[in-house]
Amino acid sequence: MNGADALITTLADNGVTACFANPGTSEMQFVSALDREPRMRSVLCLFEGVATGAADGWGRMTGTPACTLLHLGAGYANGGANLHNARRAATPVVNVIGDHATYHRQYDAPLNSDIAGWAAPNSLWVKSADTPDSVGPMAAEAVRASFGAPGGCASLILPADSAWSETTVKGPVLERPVRVKALSGVVEATAARIRAAKKPVILMGGSTCLDAGVRQAGRLAAAGVRVLTDTFVARLARGAGRFAPDKMMYFGEMALADLEGVDLMVLVETVEPAAFFAYPDRPSLLVPEGCAVTSLCGREADGPAALQALADALGAPESPPVEGLELPGMPGGVFNPYSIGASIARHMPENAIVSDDAVTAGLPVFQSTRTARPHDWLMLTGGAIGQGIPVAIGAAVACPDRKVLSLNGDGAAMYTVQGLWTIAREQLDVTTVVFANHAYRILNIEMGRTGAGNPGPAASKLLDLGNPRIDWVSLAGGLGLPAERVSTPEAFDEAFERAMNQTGPRFIEAAL
Amino acid sequence: MNGADALITTLADNGVTACFANPGTSEMQFVSALDREPRMRSVLCLFEGVATGAADGWGRMTGTPACTLLHLGAGYANGGANLHNARRAATPVVNVIGDHATYHRQYDAPLNSDIAGWAAPNSLWVKSADTPDSVGPMAAEAVRASFGAPGGCASLILPADSAWSETTVKGPVLERPVRVKALSGVVEATAARIRAAKKPVILMGGSTCLDAGVRQAGRLAAAGVRVLTDTFVARLARGAGRFAPDKMMYFGEMALADLEGVDLMVLVETVEPAAFFAYPDRPSLLVPEGCAVTSLCGREADGPAALQALADALGAPESPPVEGLELPGMPGGVFNPYSIGASIARHMPENAIVSDDAVTAGLPVFQSTRTARPHDWLMLTGGAIGQGIPVAIGAAVACPDRKVLSLNGDGAAMYTVQGLWTIAREQLDVTTVVFANHAYRILNIEMGRTGAGNPGPAASKLLDLGNPRIDWVSLAGGLGLPAERVSTPEAFDEAFERAMNQTGPRFIEAAL
Repeated sequence: MNGADALITTLADNGVTACFANPGTSEMQFVSALDREPRMRSVLCLFEGVATGAADGWGRMTGTPACTLLHLGAGYANGGANLHNARRAATPVVNVIGDHATYHRQYDAPLNSDIAGWAAPNSLWVKSADTPDSVGPMAAEAVRASFGAPGGCASLILPADSAWSETTVKGPVLERPVRVKALSGVVEATAARIRAAKKPVILMGGSTCLDAGVRQAGRLAAAGVRVLTDTFVARLARGAGRFAPDKMMYFGEMALADLEGVDLMVLVETVEPAAFFAYPDRPSLLVPEGCAVTSLCGREADGPAALQALADALGAPESPPVEGLELPGMPGGVFNPYSIGASIARHMPENAIVSDDAVTAGLPVFQSTRTARPHDWLMLTGGAIGQGIPVAIGAAVACPDRKVLSLNGDGAAMYTVQGLWTIAREQLDVTTVVFANHAYRILNIEMGRTGAGNPGPAASKLLDLGNPRIDWVSLAGGLGLPAERVSTPEAFDEAFERAMNQTGPRFIEAAL
Repeated sequence: MNGADALITTLADNGVTACFANPGTSEMQFVSALDREPRMRSVLCLFEGVATGAADGWGRMTGTPACTLLHLGAGYANGGANLHNARRAATPVVNVIGDHATYHRQYDAPLNSDIAGWAAPNSLWVKSADTPDSVGPMAAEAVRASFGAPGGCASLILPADSAWSETTVKGPVLERPVRVKALSGVVEATAARIRAAKKPVILMGGSTCLDAGVRQAGRLAAAGVRVLTDTFVARLARGAGRFAPDKMMYFGEMALADLEGVDLMVLVETVEPAAFFAYPDRPSLLVPEGCAVTSLCGREADGPAALQALADALGAPESPPVEGLELPGMPGGVFNPYSIGASIARHMPENAIVSDDAVTAGLPVFQSTRTARPHDWLMLTGGAIGQGIPVAIGAAVACPDRKVLSLNGDGAAMYTVQGLWTIAREQLDVTTVVFANHAYRILNIEMGRTGAGNPGPAASKLLDLGNPRIDWVSLAGGLGLPAERVSTPEAFDEAFERAMNQTGPRFIEAAL
């Protein structure tokens, strides 16, 4: 057994059974060891941003970390933006970052860089396994560290000589840390404040947005408390048979109008809401004037349990009403994100997983699918576009029996377009939709809001993707996906229905 | 004038006249200000790794920095790998990294991250312009800092409120720092040691590989000293009419065999050579046993002037022999990087610029073009693949009258494939060649060398790009480039000749 064997065995022993990889020379021992550990599924990604986003998707769906395999500091940097999103999603991820042999570092060879420095901003835990005997134990430690609380990235630097040298030391199987519970005194006090408030709301994030938390949120809504989620959450259980919380609106002035008169905001696994960006003369903090804010529990705690205790304290009904299944009719008229949303609602099968990186097109589809068959919605938690395809990959590897939808703005899809190849190679059951509006549409909106005025010729050139128009069918086809372009509601509906009725990869360019 | 105006005006006043950008909401004021500063050419890149690599290419060709425009920490991270290459190339680059408004940072909105932390590993200089009046002066400081010595990245963080607020303060025009000269005592002593040595070599890097330094190196070679360059240098002036130094071989054992018997190594703008990677039981330091090492001057100094002084001290001839123009005949037989190299040598026009990210195919083409028409060769300085297309973009924007070749391994080209769109949009005179061998070929070689044995099924899957095969013509065509696939020496020769005889973008898939 060498260090690489110790690493992979320890990871698998601790439940890490998927590796999203783009290796280089310094990772060859790890690659070779994969042949000796059948529990670890390895998936090649043609760019590290795909690998890290896929690990995020896997972690969101399984609650356990996948590992990434990255090539020194530069490989880590390439994966950094999607690890930023994973950090914001509190997804457990174990990064294995290959490094030069320990004795080789002193020569500052071309690929040498400050790996720990690169990894620090996104990592809960960074260590370098500088001896072969330390690799296994540190791998176990990394898995445990990735659980947080809340979860996040643990980054294990693996020098080449630690990987290729012999060792007899595997790492232990460590227990997953137990999440703390909200104090009963806090629950009681919060219930009292809610009873005393004129217009209380609960704002929830994190793990409360999974099935169990949403169920408790429904009880609270039935008891008369409005419940909202953060604008962007890692994973939201929704659709028919479930309670549908509102969500904080993206634009601050709309959010504040929506919250007008609210005198108490109870936070559960989240923090005081702030605008996504600042704008001149608009508020940053999205709490109405005079509204008291209190925290039921932070992100480190068991939010669903806290919600349940709060619901019990408020005497909320055990079985509150939920959304019924309501599917829209065949869409017609103008081809836009709403008509597409209707088709998605009509045909998306039960238990589908939606990876949403659709930017301006995302909200219309989200709204359209409120009463669709039950599904999970994965959002862009950190604002770094280029997540939609990678997260779909990870979700599909994690959940091979569930249909995965990857919804992407065209600007966002270009960021990690390499992921389409991995979908094709692994024959994942992913239907990718690109909303081809040939612009960074959101920036056309934001430019005015930031007070920057109307774009002139130079500015316009930086917001427009239309010259040349990207031929997405050609692009996706070139990467091995069966692909088609549609430009009417009827054609989209037909193409999407077909994709839902078969297994395996499909690509649809929605030419808007 | 707002802070964004102050920034762009100051940059342009200091010679920064190209901006490679992928903006977001926090950069809208900068984008808007571009309409008011005609000296700044802005180029949209669909991924930040393209923008940073393009800035590197611009800087290598002009010797002055371009600026990048990046969207907070995540945008910087996406550009990080090519900034690693730029750091290794000592290329001056000014990164403008948009940030939240200063007063908005406290809310830790989704895109918030430790920008300075991200930027530190690759930057000579990182500052945040937290008031509108500081933007202009800091921009001037950043430009100056980017010159090093040697050059590198200066990263200016630009909070949105500093950009949108009014100011009257532009930055000064700062003089470029003067490079230090090697001490005459050191030159004399080095000359004496060379005279006393049995088998001296000079190893040169950095700016000595530009035209003026290569000319002096030729004089030294004529005086009987073997001259080599580092394996990877930022830019090498070569071809007919120039002296052709050897270069350090990539694999350590070959390099040491090549240097056998050498008893003195003189370093000029470089450091002791080390292997690119460590391997079990192979040397890291590529200096023969018993060989003395001395430095004529470091990277901060004026290497060409030092070489000239050394050549004078050794009484080297003023006009040593240079390579004559020797072009190969029409290639035939097996289609491989050597036959492709022959075609490139035959048809590449005078003053072409070659951006080489061709990995295993790069050396054969390099060797084949030694006596081709004079040209500049830009290498992968930091080992982070994905540089070839972006650097070509920057070189083409910097040198619109020169033909640019972008040579890429297929694995490398996928990293920053988004750059093909920018080549199409800007109608750059770039001919892109992808060597489609459908594998990470270098890793097939390296796996054995690292002692990891022969790849089994799991390992093989991480080295192979063949399933599915990427259809590069479809991919490049989808991004707006006229593209063709060739699979014989004759067909490549014909396609490449055609590309050289016209202006504007062309894409050739060499199906190996």
